[in-house]
Amino acid sequence: MERIAVATLGFVHRFLRRIWHFAKKDERLQSIAYRIRNSRAFSDISQHERMLADHVRVETYHKAICRHVHEGDTVVDLGTGTGILAFFAGQQKAKQVYAIDHSSIIELAKTLGAANRLGNVSFLRMHSSQFAPPEKVNVIIHEQIGDALLNEDMVRNICELRDKVLAPDGIILPGRFELFVEPARLKETLRVPYLWENDIHGIRYEAAEDWVRANVESVPQSRRITPEDVAEFLCEPESVLSLDLLTAKPDGVPRQLTFRKVATKSGFMDGYCLYFDALFDSEVSLSTSPFAERTHWNCQIFRTERLFVREGDTFDVVFDIPNVRDVTTWRINHKLAARQDDSAGQAPVPLLAGVR
Amino acid sequence: MERIAVATLGFVHRFLRRIWHFAKKDERLQSIAYRIRNSRAFSDISQHERMLADHVRVETYHKAICRHVHEGDTVVDLGTGTGILAFFAGQQKAKQVYAIDHSSIIELAKTLGAANRLGNVSFLRMHSSQFAPPEKVNVIIHEQIGDALLNEDMVRNICELRDKVLAPDGIILPGRFELFVEPARLKETLRVPYLWENDIHGIRYEAAEDWVRANVESVPQSRRITPEDVAEFLCEPESVLSLDLLTAKPDGVPRQLTFRKVATKSGFMDGYCLYFDALFDSEVSLSTSPFAERTHWNCQIFRTERLFVREGDTFDVVFDIPNVRDVTTWRINHKLAARQDDSAGQAPVPLLAGVR
Repeated sequence: MERIAVATLGFVHRFLRRIWHFAKKDERLQSIAYRIRNSRAFSDISQHERMLADHVRVETYHKAICRHVHEGDTVVDLGTGTGILAFFAGQQKAKQVYAIDHSSIIELAKTLGAANRLGNVSFLRMHSSQFAPPEKVNVIIHEQIGDALLNEDMVRNICELRDKVLAPDGIILPGRFELFVEPARLKETLRVPYLWENDIHGIRYEAAEDWVRANVESVPQSRRITPEDVAEFLCEPESVLSLDLLTAKPDGVPRQLTFRKVATKSGFMDGYCLYFDALFDSEVSLSTSPFAERTHWNCQIFRTERLFVREGDTFDVVFDIPNVRDVTTWRINHKLAARQDDSAGQAPVPLLAGVR
Repeated sequence: MERIAVATLGFVHRFLRRIWHFAKKDERLQSIAYRIRNSRAFSDISQHERMLADHVRVETYHKAICRHVHEGDTVVDLGTGTGILAFFAGQQKAKQVYAIDHSSIIELAKTLGAANRLGNVSFLRMHSSQFAPPEKVNVIIHEQIGDALLNEDMVRNICELRDKVLAPDGIILPGRFELFVEPARLKETLRVPYLWENDIHGIRYEAAEDWVRANVESVPQSRRITPEDVAEFLCEPESVLSLDLLTAKPDGVPRQLTFRKVATKSGFMDGYCLYFDALFDSEVSLSTSPFAERTHWNCQIFRTERLFVREGDTFDVVFDIPNVRDVTTWRINHKLAARQDDSAGQAPVPLLAGVR
């Protein structure tokens, strides 16, 4: 009896996963699936607790809102959650703050708005695509920022909202972003090699490589890590993608980034660390760099097999973002070329592709 | 069209969650559901990569297996995964090692066994309840150890296997465990207060408390943390549950632990940190304490509202484990009593119940 139940439920589970897998390939279904997950995830109280506990996040937004929201402004806070950013705008004597969220959490925001006597904040349960205010707004506030910057559909949602509701001289907080993808070494205790790299007390795992490629749907390349896992970067950090939400297009996230980096020190690398900076103006910003003050955002590591890099070596990197909402589909391929004076004029030799 | 699809899929999603929620209340369904999740989760390659990358784990098992598996022994490795522990036993010239796993990962273990010429290891895809060897075994090796020690159904599975297959003088590696539940302060940057504790630039969240209690199914008390999140303990660590798998009963996990602790220093506490030690013999053990060398196991924090504790204060704690496989159901209630000489003979006053 128990065995039949296990088998049946197992079958249903696999069937649903198959449908999910199919749905992931369609752009439209991706968007729908993302919205459903999103609307559920953000009615989870613990998410809001984590975001409110992130002092760097809260203080940076507060500072930016105090600087840029003025008496008489009309403001929209997209994805308001428990309402904190809308309340900050309300405190600035905005004429009207629209706090919108498609999750039921909006009811809590409403309760808190009343308790804090913020009469200039109104609460709307809807997706931003349904939002149609009677007048143009001066400020769009949002925190649609995923651990991997782009994976909460920020660019599409903000650009569509901007085109519909933002006054010609309006602003977006935060409006600019820089994305970083840096060759990094992880702390030894937290490094996770590919299965086939293992050789443990004489037990060699090379044979795993063919087996995994034949039997496993996909070998995970990216993994969420805490910023503390990173020991060092091997290059000088340099943004590989700049986004300005005032001028971006809804489909303005490139599907592929190609860039070159030069190692500024010698050492082992374990993969590429993805993080971002969010810029509110030329003076107010926050960074999720492993070497900045800790926020609630984690980093992603796109691992490579461990390799030794020499100062002056060149990384030629192709970074694919096939489905912007699903970081597990993002992929890095790189070629590492030894410094010219090491190889005396030879053409760069591809040492390794991160994903094979 | 898109809106109808969102609504429909949202409904199906909620329906399935409702069934899941119902299933969680039935002990038998719990066990079935756990097995399905488990059999899927452990065919995930990245899990195995993480476990193999945990040097503390691998080295401790290797040391224990070298000490306790002797030439000619018969050994079973329960939940063998990629087979590493079975291979270590094979290297000790065991007569026969049975490597069993109910996930498809067993095929990889088989491939690795052949590649490493370990002819004395045989691979069986089955649940331990179906395992029936022709002779009694001398050693049971297992790593059915969850982040919260008990949540991988270890006690039931090992005890049932032991009663069926272990020779009278046989041993279990690891055979003993100590569970710790220690009042702890978290690092400031990683502390997550209850929603209603927030007061941010004059925005007060007290009104959230009633709303959350009326509208949210359950306020998460436990949360998985990395050991690095813990700043300090407020008491001298002392085990609250000792398990000996040689003598335990399959249903030998108590549903409730009650214990008393005395603060050995003054300071803030944010909750109770749960971790464990695994003991292979009197000399070989590993600890997942936040202050021991890092393993791949994380800790759980059962948070309380932040409170200031004075040296000598007494914690009277009731720790409930209604569903051993689901840490989110585990709950702590405590009473904190001020040190006697502070309150001059008064009865202890309950300051706070962690879960209200």
